[in-house]
Amino acid sequence: MLKTRLDLDRIRAARRAIDPVFLDTPLFPCDALGDALGCTASVKLETANPVRSFKGRGTELVTGQLRDQGRDAAVCASAGNLGWALAWSGRRRGLAVTVVASRHAPAAKLDRIRAQGAELELVDGDFDSARQRAVDIARRRGIRLVEDSLDVETCEGAATIGLELVQRASGIDTVLIALGGGALATGVGHVLKALAPGVEVICVQPHGAPAMTRSWHRRRVVTTESTDTIADGVAGRHPIPAVLDDLLAVADDAVLVQEASIIAGMRLLLRHAGLVVEPSAALGVAAVLEDPDRFAGRRIATIICGSNVNLDDYHRWVGP
Amino acid sequence: MLKTRLDLDRIRAARRAIDPVFLDTPLFPCDALGDALGCTASVKLETANPVRSFKGRGTELVTGQLRDQGRDAAVCASAGNLGWALAWSGRRRGLAVTVVASRHAPAAKLDRIRAQGAELELVDGDFDSARQRAVDIARRRGIRLVEDSLDVETCEGAATIGLELVQRASGIDTVLIALGGGALATGVGHVLKALAPGVEVICVQPHGAPAMTRSWHRRRVVTTESTDTIADGVAGRHPIPAVLDDLLAVADDAVLVQEASIIAGMRLLLRHAGLVVEPSAALGVAAVLEDPDRFAGRRIATIICGSNVNLDDYHRWVGP
Repeated sequence: MLKTRLDLDRIRAARRAIDPVFLDTPLFPCDALGDALGCTASVKLETANPVRSFKGRGTELVTGQLRDQGRDAAVCASAGNLGWALAWSGRRRGLAVTVVASRHAPAAKLDRIRAQGAELELVDGDFDSARQRAVDIARRRGIRLVEDSLDVETCEGAATIGLELVQRASGIDTVLIALGGGALATGVGHVLKALAPGVEVICVQPHGAPAMTRSWHRRRVVTTESTDTIADGVAGRHPIPAVLDDLLAVADDAVLVQEASIIAGMRLLLRHAGLVVEPSAALGVAAVLEDPDRFAGRRIATIICGSNVNLDDYHRWVGP
Repeated sequence: MLKTRLDLDRIRAARRAIDPVFLDTPLFPCDALGDALGCTASVKLETANPVRSFKGRGTELVTGQLRDQGRDAAVCASAGNLGWALAWSGRRRGLAVTVVASRHAPAAKLDRIRAQGAELELVDGDFDSARQRAVDIARRRGIRLVEDSLDVETCEGAATIGLELVQRASGIDTVLIALGGGALATGVGHVLKALAPGVEVICVQPHGAPAMTRSWHRRRVVTTESTDTIADGVAGRHPIPAVLDDLLAVADDAVLVQEASIIAGMRLLLRHAGLVVEPSAALGVAAVLEDPDRFAGRRIATIICGSNVNLDDYHRWVGP
């Protein structure tokens, strides 16, 4: 019996609360990518929307609820994508949004947060420093703190991707999901395990930010002192216990990949699918590259979760 | 009274004949692109599918009809995208597909045509040379010649994009459409003029391949001796009279743009939308760049019609 904090009826209802611009995203076979990987590869593209990542699904849900409750402000810590999405959804609903981000977050993400009219506060340190600052702001101002992965709406928003994958589950053996805080993995994983339990759910994280993956394998929270990865979107150090419990219920495996594989994955997605992606979105391809025998001949789908990347960084990594 | 070779009932029915992987493509506002262009910009993305261009909509329709008629082979001339799409649709339906292309077509397109199991014949010269050779093959073998833009199915397949745009027409003042042979422009234009006549339809072609645009302005077919543009997908020299008639009925304007503007458009689409596009797909943005006053404050939508480009060429044009 599948038991997580997520609820299938609420996930189905979430579709009605989310702007259609974020829903029913392309899911398509990419033969050239599959040829390069030695498997049958499909891509679920979550970047062709106003915020260029999947996070809008969750922020639409959160901000809709806040409006229903008559509230008018929210704050979040963000590596960038959640902040942009919350700023976008909040603006549409007349909410004052504050985003706390690391000074080291990609400028491309920070610029768009500002452009949406959100208040942007930058902190030294990494995502966990930003999270602490967001907690302080929420307490002082008495406004809603949106916590990625901990707030079940962020997971259930992401889970609507799972509903779309399930419609085509007969053609998919394995779904590869970027693992950061866990909203995407637990959301999509919950729906797949509930409605298409034969589909394998594999989460992928960088060796340079392995906290959640280590926690999954040891079945208890493991934190790390630091992170060292170009995949800024998944670089957390402190897994949330409740999210780990959910992940233990839905993931079939969690694997770590090298930075070089992430870059090779970005390169393949550009060359064979014409997609510029941020590092987190290449984690699934990286996992196939590191263990080709495991995926040989399998029908894999990977979620392209974001394309927000500084182009200078991108070119330095991927090359001409 | 709108009079073209296209028929709205057939276009609506076409949706049922086309694999859903080509339908209901993303249409989303891109604030960063709009900020850069001084208008409100939305993107209709026709590249997130198995053939990375809009051509699958037409080839699905053609090959479905061939199967219904019990026929088992087809040939087309192609700058690359139609060939890939016909090879993909034909393979799914067990049709033997032959594609005739110019030796100078992008290798990225030619490789994918071969990978789909189609017979690929390369000719010296440009698209019009390939077209003549395809005519010969069809006659000799007694198989169906698929002629882009002349065959109404290719126009009505493309026209299904128009149905999707019409659903959101209340937020669009102007649609900018790449103009080559005319299938895309007459297809989308027909539906817009039939169902959302207030939306302005502007076709865009390179100065280096201006035959159809000059023909539209003079209201009679004008041919050119040669073409000179990086936008290989729209580089024809001999407009088809029946297609010109249709275009005269549906287009509000047809404009020519410089190569430098096409490249600047590709650069903006990469930087502000994260999209790698082939030159033809940047024609709409190029038109806004060349005449900013005309579009200032307007709500434009442009169709990103293809992303099949040699990366070496792309980097040489767009730069790091």
